[in-house]
Amino acid sequence: MKTINVGILGLGTVGAGTAETLLKQHDLIRDRSGIDVQLSRAADLNLDRDFGVEFPEGVLTQDARAVIQDPDIHIIVELIGGTGIAKTLILEALEAGKAVVTANKALLAEHGPELIAKAAEKGVDLFFEASVAGGIPIIKSLREGLVANPVNRICGILNGTCNYILTRMEREGVPFDEVLAEAQALGYAEAEPSLDVDGWDTAHKAVILAQLAFGLDVTLDEITVKGIRGMDAVDVQAAADLGYRIKLLAILEPEGRGIAISVQPVLIPLDHMLASVDMSFNAVLVDGEVVDETLYYGRGAGRLPTASAVVADIVDAARDLSLEVSERIPLRWQPDPAPQLTPRGEVQERSYLRLHLKDEPGTLGQVTRILGEHGISITAVNQKEGLAKDGRVPVLFLTGKAPVAELEAALAEFAALDPEGTVPLRYRVEELS
Amino acid sequence: MKTINVGILGLGTVGAGTAETLLKQHDLIRDRSGIDVQLSRAADLNLDRDFGVEFPEGVLTQDARAVIQDPDIHIIVELIGGTGIAKTLILEALEAGKAVVTANKALLAEHGPELIAKAAEKGVDLFFEASVAGGIPIIKSLREGLVANPVNRICGILNGTCNYILTRMEREGVPFDEVLAEAQALGYAEAEPSLDVDGWDTAHKAVILAQLAFGLDVTLDEITVKGIRGMDAVDVQAAADLGYRIKLLAILEPEGRGIAISVQPVLIPLDHMLASVDMSFNAVLVDGEVVDETLYYGRGAGRLPTASAVVADIVDAARDLSLEVSERIPLRWQPDPAPQLTPRGEVQERSYLRLHLKDEPGTLGQVTRILGEHGISITAVNQKEGLAKDGRVPVLFLTGKAPVAELEAALAEFAALDPEGTVPLRYRVEELS
Repeated sequence: MKTINVGILGLGTVGAGTAETLLKQHDLIRDRSGIDVQLSRAADLNLDRDFGVEFPEGVLTQDARAVIQDPDIHIIVELIGGTGIAKTLILEALEAGKAVVTANKALLAEHGPELIAKAAEKGVDLFFEASVAGGIPIIKSLREGLVANPVNRICGILNGTCNYILTRMEREGVPFDEVLAEAQALGYAEAEPSLDVDGWDTAHKAVILAQLAFGLDVTLDEITVKGIRGMDAVDVQAAADLGYRIKLLAILEPEGRGIAISVQPVLIPLDHMLASVDMSFNAVLVDGEVVDETLYYGRGAGRLPTASAVVADIVDAARDLSLEVSERIPLRWQPDPAPQLTPRGEVQERSYLRLHLKDEPGTLGQVTRILGEHGISITAVNQKEGLAKDGRVPVLFLTGKAPVAELEAALAEFAALDPEGTVPLRYRVEELS
Repeated sequence: MKTINVGILGLGTVGAGTAETLLKQHDLIRDRSGIDVQLSRAADLNLDRDFGVEFPEGVLTQDARAVIQDPDIHIIVELIGGTGIAKTLILEALEAGKAVVTANKALLAEHGPELIAKAAEKGVDLFFEASVAGGIPIIKSLREGLVANPVNRICGILNGTCNYILTRMEREGVPFDEVLAEAQALGYAEAEPSLDVDGWDTAHKAVILAQLAFGLDVTLDEITVKGIRGMDAVDVQAAADLGYRIKLLAILEPEGRGIAISVQPVLIPLDHMLASVDMSFNAVLVDGEVVDETLYYGRGAGRLPTASAVVADIVDAARDLSLEVSERIPLRWQPDPAPQLTPRGEVQERSYLRLHLKDEPGTLGQVTRILGEHGISITAVNQKEGLAKDGRVPVLFLTGKAPVAELEAALAEFAALDPEGTVPLRYRVEELS
């Protein structure tokens, strides 16, 4: 039986969980894979803490570079995070001819092509299953299980913190700020929550999925990213009354001239599987041309769920190493011609609008005229009595599909009708059928 | 670029769909995998029909053996079905050193070990992703994506016909026979529905999952199989009133001395993801020790969804062939010591009971006494006024966990209390948490 030696860089939550899993499940992995996968070294600058796992003698070190340069180590697992030293160390490991496994979504989203080019140059594996949707084997499913499928659409709930906040807002009618503060107190949300609640973490994952599903290289600043910060519980409740649930979704789909990608809160039908994904769980809906709709659900974060995906990558790399092959799954798919990103303004969306209209004759007429001028059809209107405030009444609209440019122009005109009033609000609506 | 040639045996629904997918998605597969996967030959005894796909000149043949023996063909795809000629041809293909892909669940459930032994002897791949849950990449997820996970439980909705019938019974309150007849008229159910509605198709898949998840070799006649034939809409409705939905589930989990496996209708909580799987869709819930709960959802049957999984296997085999390796994923996992099947009587289940009790003093007392004597606790009772018929009233019970042997003994005693009455009925209840 072949022995494959693994070195971990970074013993934070996921690094320690990966070490624990490699040690605890060693025999299971050996029996299932036919390979003796050994945790050889594990590096962290701060060794003076409890990792929740008992390391064998000689495994721990403070010297990451010694791990990379150790000729006995075949696979380097980068779990430091961030785009600084993590990038340098991955490039050094690839340069040294080591297979690399990482869970670093920010790094892949910002420097993926550079890392992949280096892995290709050296002819080694670079795996990153844990970078999208934590423990869910979504990258393997997309690249291997669905290899025969042109992708018609991907919709992902990819951030557990946002989904937890939205679930509690809907169930308990609690305001955003309150749920966020509680989530922070419980450790479910970071003290600096922007990466999660402003949608950036989801956007990192969308960038990675764009390359896997469409062979599209896109940068973070090219895609539309809107988070859930400051979301009003009123809209969460109104969506429920209309038969929808609001989820922060990454949506990627061929549309118009290219691939449309967005990260934003979206109203989805209550009876769709994606709407049942609650609390901190993640899910990815993949609509493939051959397979039709498929969905993958599980924990998108956490010490052990993420480690499950990291170790699956380690074993995949170990299989290739023990057979002395690499790039069994090509590192990169570059369709010819290269696909483009569809300009945001050309993307067609159904919408939920909440307008606060002056309580006077003719206002609703102005709204319907503006919508009509922009080619936006109205599919539902909901105005209830007794909600007037400051001389304005809230009116909810659901609209048919229209280009985002037209929707945004209409919104600007609504705002101009009443400069002192509440800013008009729009969310995407997606039937998912 | 390497060319890998594929021969298909059997051009029924899935065979024709596989041919269509190989032809139509040829360029996509080439671009994604870096391999030129060619449909070389396709054999069927009856070529005088419309396959819904245009075959290139020289591909069609009536001679399956010529395809197997063709030295230019690397992968044989068996889509004839059944356990007769299909088995012979697979063994011949393996003997000839060809990689084999099949979707034949009945054959794998009945002769899996023999086929796998032959593949191992010849050092070739034998893949069967499409045999469980159609287009859903569940086998790949279990063997590769979750390789580090001891499996705590698998619950699968694995038969679309049964799930379609149960969904319509619940939504419309229509009796079983009526929905079945309609499903047959629409082509969703076979004229001879036993394989589906009596649970045997689900059981075939459970046998395959038992080997993949636990390394347990079990035969069809060793596991408990109860289908949905004759299910009363009364129970479907009563379950809903109690907060549950009835699904035909394959459940596999370590319990007591070994692995407990059953196929039976089960009440599951309405708010669980599995309960949202409706109509003809399939889903598999895998609770892994490291990853926690994950779920895989999609179409479990059909021309193209099944072809999606078959072609994924073809591409996997092509990757191995083009790298000149095999058994990258070991054909078989044989834990030492070999796991056992837990005897049915020792399995602990919660239960839903429907008893028709004589409308006279003391009857309920007899029931509670019998339950108590068998160590079965009552967690809910529901008896409604005005439902008496023939001097009996229906009473529903939910019970705590108890060994199946005790539950069955209690049921026999209930039946003996009133030999002329309605036979007492029991379904498993599973909280899935």
